[in-house]
Amino acid sequence: MNLKRNVYLDMKSIKEATKILFDHFGHIKTDIETLDVVNAKDRVLATPAMAAISSPNFHAAAMDGIAVDAKVTFGASEDAPITLLPDKNAFFVNTGHVLPVGTNAVIMIEHLNIIDEKNVEIEAPVFPWQHVRKMGEDIVATQLLFPQGHKINAHSLGALLSGGIFKVTVYKQPKVLIIPTGSELRQWQEIKTGQLKPGDVIESNSAVLGGLCEDYGAQFDRHPMLKDNFEKIKQTVGNAVKQDYDMICIIGGSSAGSEDFAKPVISSLGKIYVHGVTMMPGKPVMFGKVSDTPVFGIPGYPVSAIVAFELFAGPLLLNMQKLPKKEIISVQVSPARKIASKLGQEEFLRVKIGSVDGKLMSSQLPRGSGSITTLTEADGIIRIPANSEGISENQSVQAQLLRPLSSIENTIVITGSHDNTLDILADQIKEDSGDISVSSSHVGSMGGLMAIKKGACHMAGAHLLDPEDGSYNISYIKKYLKDQKVWAVNLVMREQGLIVAKGNPENIQSIKDLKEKNLRFINRQPGSGTRILFDYKLKALGISIQDIQGYENDEYTHMSVAVSVLSGRVDAGLGIQAAARALDLDFIPIVTEEYDLIIPDKFYNTQKVQTLLKIIQTKKLQERIVSLGGYSTQNTGKIMYHS
Amino acid sequence: MNLKRNVYLDMKSIKEATKILFDHFGHIKTDIETLDVVNAKDRVLATPAMAAISSPNFHAAAMDGIAVDAKVTFGASEDAPITLLPDKNAFFVNTGHVLPVGTNAVIMIEHLNIIDEKNVEIEAPVFPWQHVRKMGEDIVATQLLFPQGHKINAHSLGALLSGGIFKVTVYKQPKVLIIPTGSELRQWQEIKTGQLKPGDVIESNSAVLGGLCEDYGAQFDRHPMLKDNFEKIKQTVGNAVKQDYDMICIIGGSSAGSEDFAKPVISSLGKIYVHGVTMMPGKPVMFGKVSDTPVFGIPGYPVSAIVAFELFAGPLLLNMQKLPKKEIISVQVSPARKIASKLGQEEFLRVKIGSVDGKLMSSQLPRGSGSITTLTEADGIIRIPANSEGISENQSVQAQLLRPLSSIENTIVITGSHDNTLDILADQIKEDSGDISVSSSHVGSMGGLMAIKKGACHMAGAHLLDPEDGSYNISYIKKYLKDQKVWAVNLVMREQGLIVAKGNPENIQSIKDLKEKNLRFINRQPGSGTRILFDYKLKALGISIQDIQGYENDEYTHMSVAVSVLSGRVDAGLGIQAAARALDLDFIPIVTEEYDLIIPDKFYNTQKVQTLLKIIQTKKLQERIVSLGGYSTQNTGKIMYHS
Repeated sequence: MNLKRNVYLDMKSIKEATKILFDHFGHIKTDIETLDVVNAKDRVLATPAMAAISSPNFHAAAMDGIAVDAKVTFGASEDAPITLLPDKNAFFVNTGHVLPVGTNAVIMIEHLNIIDEKNVEIEAPVFPWQHVRKMGEDIVATQLLFPQGHKINAHSLGALLSGGIFKVTVYKQPKVLIIPTGSELRQWQEIKTGQLKPGDVIESNSAVLGGLCEDYGAQFDRHPMLKDNFEKIKQTVGNAVKQDYDMICIIGGSSAGSEDFAKPVISSLGKIYVHGVTMMPGKPVMFGKVSDTPVFGIPGYPVSAIVAFELFAGPLLLNMQKLPKKEIISVQVSPARKIASKLGQEEFLRVKIGSVDGKLMSSQLPRGSGSITTLTEADGIIRIPANSEGISENQSVQAQLLRPLSSIENTIVITGSHDNTLDILADQIKEDSGDISVSSSHVGSMGGLMAIKKGACHMAGAHLLDPEDGSYNISYIKKYLKDQKVWAVNLVMREQGLIVAKGNPENIQSIKDLKEKNLRFINRQPGSGTRILFDYKLKALGISIQDIQGYENDEYTHMSVAVSVLSGRVDAGLGIQAAARALDLDFIPIVTEEYDLIIPDKFYNTQKVQTLLKIIQTKKLQERIVSLGGYSTQNTGKIMYHS
Repeated sequence: MNLKRNVYLDMKSIKEATKILFDHFGHIKTDIETLDVVNAKDRVLATPAMAAISSPNFHAAAMDGIAVDAKVTFGASEDAPITLLPDKNAFFVNTGHVLPVGTNAVIMIEHLNIIDEKNVEIEAPVFPWQHVRKMGEDIVATQLLFPQGHKINAHSLGALLSGGIFKVTVYKQPKVLIIPTGSELRQWQEIKTGQLKPGDVIESNSAVLGGLCEDYGAQFDRHPMLKDNFEKIKQTVGNAVKQDYDMICIIGGSSAGSEDFAKPVISSLGKIYVHGVTMMPGKPVMFGKVSDTPVFGIPGYPVSAIVAFELFAGPLLLNMQKLPKKEIISVQVSPARKIASKLGQEEFLRVKIGSVDGKLMSSQLPRGSGSITTLTEADGIIRIPANSEGISENQSVQAQLLRPLSSIENTIVITGSHDNTLDILADQIKEDSGDISVSSSHVGSMGGLMAIKKGACHMAGAHLLDPEDGSYNISYIKKYLKDQKVWAVNLVMREQGLIVAKGNPENIQSIKDLKEKNLRFINRQPGSGTRILFDYKLKALGISIQDIQGYENDEYTHMSVAVSVLSGRVDAGLGIQAAARALDLDFIPIVTEEYDLIIPDKFYNTQKVQTLLKIIQTKKLQERIVSLGGYSTQNTGKIMYHS
């Protein structure tokens, strides 16, 4: 193991790093090229577009009717109609026809009294130029249609062609070479599902950055993956700058570890300008120059890679083609909980956003920059400045939207206990309604009730057992939600039990075995219905929590518990059968419990919620649920309680 | 001339027509196809994407450092450091490495005191699972990554690949056949600039609708143009429905004239559902069905075509691929003037929008649906409902944005007198500043001063002659803008004179000739500096306005005056030399006048305005101006007055 460490240069703030980037590369524009207008959509004009001809290029009838010199109509009235003589002082025209010489107005056909082919009567005069599209009305030759720097959209094509401009000079699309590096990477084409060895990572960043290149108006080539090998990476970059690439992105190896070669490669071939930016994720980003080509070292963690690309590489690509900055749409949101943040680094916090009772509530997603789902599940990003220690609960704060506000407003926010049927429900609602989405956050049953209390969700999933009478949820609702009217609608009855390794190697039969065999257990977080159930069972069995190895370790979802078992980290966890079955684990049933949706009365009759309630009663959804294993839908859709 | 008229069916409202459209075609989805994930960006999932493998699929080091079982670190402190034994109870790891068997935490390399290869000291304990990315932390196998109906973006590619999903089932892109019809149409490839005959129209709608098809996720084929010929159009549509098109758009001939064949074609082959919608533009839109394929009759006027497509055809294309509706971003704007609108039809009013003093002000563009520039110059659309007679001045009203708000906020709004240098200025600012745009509205010099008074613009172009002392603008500013401090900065000195036909066939020498030769004159609108100049000259010459033929007809710009002369509609008009030169007309100089920018003090020192003032002093801009002809830049940039 080589313990030599690279060092970061002086870390820069995002603002400083951006200035350095544009000071060095801001002057670079791609070459220009001339295209047929019809092939130039989404490209940027490098020269102003001045009309070559006028549109219309003649005085044109704007209506179907008869063209006249307005003078011959003066004096016409109902009492004293005037007779016009077709082909003499009046001429039938259709919309778009050239106005005949000597005429300057059109009388609509609906206002004519056609006596015969030779005689037409009118009962009102017309003004000169009535119903005429005058020459140049739309476009006058030589006028500026679009200045340089204009991005050509579909509508622009019409103005350019109408103005007689058939070819345009535009900026070329920049070309980017993307070089994924990392000895742990595996190419997707080589992987059969389920055959990924521990330590192997599927290379996905090049696809993501390639897609982003396209979104930023650029083209990209993907270089085959490289191992962490200084010479090989150096040779590749050295060759690439001799080709016509406008930018090179080395993915991975941008940090300061012994196997991180992006920096030594760029330094040895050219010059590093920035290594390290005070932000999270994306801190280890770097950029420099090799033979006048900007070269980026993009961190390998997927969220870091995206943040680094979108902050630095993307804006530079836009600038190269004179495209305007990406439009950022922000809204004010209220975080459902206090958010702490580290001083000295700007944080890009991914959040879900729900529109609840007219207010936009945000809830924080995990911060790990290795988790791409923290971005794909996010509705927005809260940027916490470097000089801030965080955000207090309910402090209104700006969030940049990642999906349209209308879509957020059409989303049902379910907060509370985790259950696998919520995934199925989310998919089925998309299929049946099209517009409505479901967004679920897993904070446990009690967390769900608290979210209802705070007005942070539309409904909560809960399975809170009352040990006194064996009832579910009702006594908790009465205690914690006594100030509001709510409905409890059953989603499913489900099997809870011990999730154990395939084949049950420890031969676990009951909760008692956890103590007696001193097995490693993984718990659920405090406030979760499953933990309450576990505590109740321990108490009934007279087992102390000290006797359970791992009682203090917890996970937030049934699936995480199942993964803990699968990975060999623990011998057992309490969870639902569907989770065990999903990961092909064994399951020892303990109890059949009730999982309800708790819905405040003020949302109960909204269209969104009623749509959801209708869908849970469909046979199609219920069959999908039952196929997961460990569920019964005998009570699904039934109102279990209302206050 | 065939006077037979088709008739509209019962006109429908937009809402009714939309309902009919979706009742008939809303169930149609395109076929599905399976693509490699890396080729599926911007496509829509037809089936839910459930993860095939977990990510990470192993417990991984999240930092460079040393992996341990946390238990061996318990009790370590500065006073009592613990020594770890590499390769025995501690293992060096880099970020991403598999956690060695028996370990459950990583200590960062920065927190190690490396004594030698065999001895490493730590001075603090670690928690289990610290700096470890646990198996499934990002993605758990079987979890729902995206529901059906999800549009795959660049970020999604990362989640799909990481979740072991390498192929996805998506909706195919719909295929549209666009058939431009109209005997007046000419194909751009056949036109040499300046060789368009009167009556010919350049076919541009197919390019615009093709571009819109792409924007709505569809592919398109363009059929060669067809003349207005019932049999030919019928044959083409009849053949097309046998191919794999999901939609057919016939452009043109959708109205009720004798040469409008879209309706008889659709009726004879299938069935018409709607013909005529109570909206403007776009009223003559129609749609029906031929052999299960939706067929649209799209009006031929370019703005009508776009409105009709975007209201009906576009949303249907999105629906076919389960794409969400287009996001519409609206803002509140204040119209600078009252807007009247016809009862009984919903109007799509194109407006410019300026951000002036923190308020969004809108100004109406011409309504003609034949003018594509009314859309390409628009910043937004105000929809005036069918039951409204219009909007009062300063009544706040919603406008749908056509360009980003940030771009509108970076635009300098110049309202007032028309001058050709404003085009050059708009282009040069784009070149030099990148971000800043200029938007100019031509309402005459007095209109400009009134716009300043109302706070509707950042500056006004004016050339208002005081006949008493020969000065420009100052006396008008003192009279009409006495309540505010303004600056007058010269833009140009320019030649005003009579614009006459090439070769001056009427041998015009002076304004006197207009009366003496009884020539046809075109005036400028009341309140324009040019009209004030003309009136002053007439008075000085002792000529009555009754003696000028055409005094009562007016145009709003110098270029429109020049076009009137070019088209033979008039013999002469008063205007600037640059306009005559642009259209290759002759010019008889009358006066050299001062054209100033009048700038309220509150905007004078803003960055936008100072950028503009710097640019007008550059040699590059001044040379471009002088090359237009009839301009002197001797005073350009000079402060002529400030109050």
